[in-house]
Parts: sequence; structure tokens; C-alpha cells
Amino acid sequence: MPDSRPIAILGGTGPAGMGLALRWARAGETIIIGSRDAQRAQEAAANIKNKSGDNARVSGMENSAACSAAGLLVLTVPFEGQATLLKQLKPAIRAGSMLIDATVALAAGVGGRASRTLGVWQGSAAQQAAELVPKGVSVAAAFHNLSAELLNGDQAIDCDVIVCSDDAGASQFALTLAGKIPGVRAIDGGKLENARILEQITALLVGLNIRHKGHGGIRITGLPPEAYR
Amino acid sequence: MPDSRPIAILGGTGPAGMGLALRWARAGETIIIGSRDAQRAQEAAANIKNKSGDNARVSGMENSAACSAAGLLVLTVPFEGQATLLKQLKPAIRAGSMLIDATVALAAGVGGRASRTLGVWQGSAAQQAAELVPKGVSVAAAFHNLSAELLNGDQAIDCDVIVCSDDAGASQFALTLAGKIPGVRAIDGGKLENARILEQITALLVGLNIRHKGHGGIRITGLPPEAYR
Repeated sequence: MPDSRPIAILGGTGPAGMGLALRWARAGETIIIGSRDAQRAQEAAANIKNKSGDNARVSGMENSAACSAAGLLVLTVPFEGQATLLKQLKPAIRAGSMLIDATVALAAGVGGRASRTLGVWQGSAAQQAAELVPKGVSVAAAFHNLSAELLNGDQAIDCDVIVCSDDAGASQFALTLAGKIPGVRAIDGGKLENARILEQITALLVGLNIRHKGHGGIRITGLPPEAYR
Repeated sequence: MPDSRPIAILGGTGPAGMGLALRWARAGETIIIGSRDAQRAQEAAANIKNKSGDNARVSGMENSAACSAAGLLVLTVPFEGQATLLKQLKPAIRAGSMLIDATVALAAGVGGRASRTLGVWQGSAAQQAAELVPKGVSVAAAFHNLSAELLNGDQAIDCDVIVCSDDAGASQFALTLAGKIPGVRAIDGGKLENARILEQITALLVGLNIRHKGHGGIRITGLPPEAYR
């Protein structure tokens, strides 16, 4: 597992990216917050350090620089920015990198509802990401269903993370990182194409949150103990 | 709640229908098992009675007769039979009936995988059902994600049932019936259009069951107590 290898969170100044950075910094990971704006990234990194303690290893960089500095990438941008950012970062992404995509194609991105999704030609935002990364970069889909608000708090999170990938290494990367978030159980969800369902679940949870005023998550029940990491 | 009003389970001799019938018969509901074949329906009803005790009120009828005898309908057929059955039953369905649809458009229905779904023009199998029932019949989507094998057992079920409907009455009918299955919590999932996500979750669970050898279900976490019935 990456322990000493830095993890770049691209688009990491948004609520989901900040929450993941906080949890992983607390778990001892080396985190690079990526942003379009290097200064904003550095401010976000300082913010994470404040919350996670002086020993936390968190820095901030412009997204391309973050890609150059890390082979482990996590993408947490709104869907409407995903393709543009990946095309822009293509020259900066190192050969052999692994990318975890957490993008959900919410209709809110085009002025619609956050409880509805857009159809993505490739089947899912994660599959779009897989098409846009340089050859040889492997992609896993994960972390769609974690409440950003809960991630940015201090409590254990009552939610499972399902990981979908066609690559064993990327899958393992995501499963391990998921297991570092207190309360979270990581579950191998099979092929990357299944990401479309994880993405839809986010829209369902958004709808439930609006209707019931909560911070919804999901647990998968009924699997044998060895299915949960 | 319907307590004394009979509930017809159409296509009720399949594993899901039998499991629901068993659980509701045990909860004191009056159940009519519907099937293409009246004799098969009666055998299934006898089977349920055997498992749920002599006081159970369970009978079996041909599907059309079941519709004529009950205003509360639950549809548990494979997707590939859904539209044909609803068209056939249209004259038999009573005005003002409520229908709960549990159909999932698994690709297995056309020779594909049960871990993948087919696209349904209306958005979901439940919305297709809503288009095919007689005017004035209200539709709710529910019970997609309960393991048929667990339903046919004796244990409480570690799974939530999310109910989607555009009609308050149909929604209440489904929420109340869900709450009668030991272990199950019922959650209002909003409009019928959201059924597409419930249907997709079934495919995800099928995939997880194959991969991890389990009987997967889902729990929604993080909502306030009053969201769970």
C-alpha cells in the first residue's frame, strides 16, 4: 500500500476532496491537494493541516503539478468539469499512474436536479475518465456515496464504499484508501462498468437527503465477512 | 392500512412473490397468489399455508381472477413478462386499484447478465407499469432489493425497502407492507421516476452476490429516525 507515496486529490478544494484529504491525512497518508489555482490549493492544504494536526503531510499545488508529483490520483470534480480537466492534465499524468474517479454526472451540472443523473455515452463518468487518461493509466471508481459534510467532520462514517475497476492494482488502491476512513467498509464491486450504478446511488441519496433532511449513505448487507475490507 | 383487504401477488409463484406472500401471510394479511395457471397458484398457496400456519389467509387464483378479487396488487414477474401480463390484465384490474411493481429489467431476461440492466424507454420498469395500468390505477415501486432466498426463510431481513411513487396512497400501501416484513425498514424514496435507481441497485446486488457469494441487501444510513417506518 502507498503509505509513503503521495496521493494527489485533483479538484481537491471542493467539499468531497477536502473531506477525503482530511481523513487520509489523519490516517498518515501524504496528500497533495490539486486545484486550478496553486494558492487556493495551498490554503486548502493549510486548512487540512489545521484540522488534522502538525504531523499531517499535506501540500497544495496546481493540478498539473500535482499529477507530476504523484502517481496516485483521486479525481473529485463536478462532472461538468471532468472531461476538460482530464484532457488538460493528460500530458502531466505520469505513466503507470492510478486514478480513482469519484465523479457523478448529476443533472445539477447542467442546471437540472442533483437527484437526477445525465446519461454518459460511455456508461458512466468513471468510464469517461478511463477513456480520457493516458494509455496505461488504470482507473477505479469509488467514493461516490460518502457525504462530503460527514467526511469533513470527526465522526466515523456509517457508509460502505464500493470499488469498481478493471484493474487489480487500481482496485486495491481504492479499497485500501477506503478502509482508512473510520467506519467505512470497502467492497469490491467488480468491473468499472458497474460504476454507473454507484453514480446513480449518489443521486438517490441526494434525493433522500432533500426529502428527509439527512446525510444519507449506504451499507451493503448480507455478504460474507471476507467481502468487507 | 389494508389489514382485511386482500393483496393479490401477480406472478406470485416465483421466488420473490412466494417470499413476500409468506412474510405478509405471517403478518396476518389476506393473500391471493396469482399465476397464469390457477392450479399452480393454489399449490403455491398451500405451500405458503404450510409454512405460515393454519390461521394464514392465503388462496391461489389465475392472475385475472386475482385482480378481480383484490384492489391491492403486487407485481413480481420477470421483466420480459411484465408488459404482456399488464396488457392482458388491463380489463381485469379494478378501478381505483393500487399496484406495487417490483420488476427489474435485468439483461438476463434477454439472454444477458443478471448483473446488468436493460434500458427501458419510460425510464424504469415501474414507469412502464404505470403506463400500462388502467387510468386511475396508482403505482408504487418497491421490494426490488430484497433477497428472494432470505424472504423465503424465517429470519429477520437486514435490508431497507425504498418506495417510489407519484401517488400518496400507493406509497403508503407499499411503505406499510414493507414495514410488515421483520427487519425491514421502509423509506419514502420520492417520485416513481426514482424507481430506475432501485432497479439498478438490484443488478449491483446480483453482481455482488455472484462475486462474494452472499445474499446482498442495502441499508440507507444517515437519515433522521422519522425517515424510517
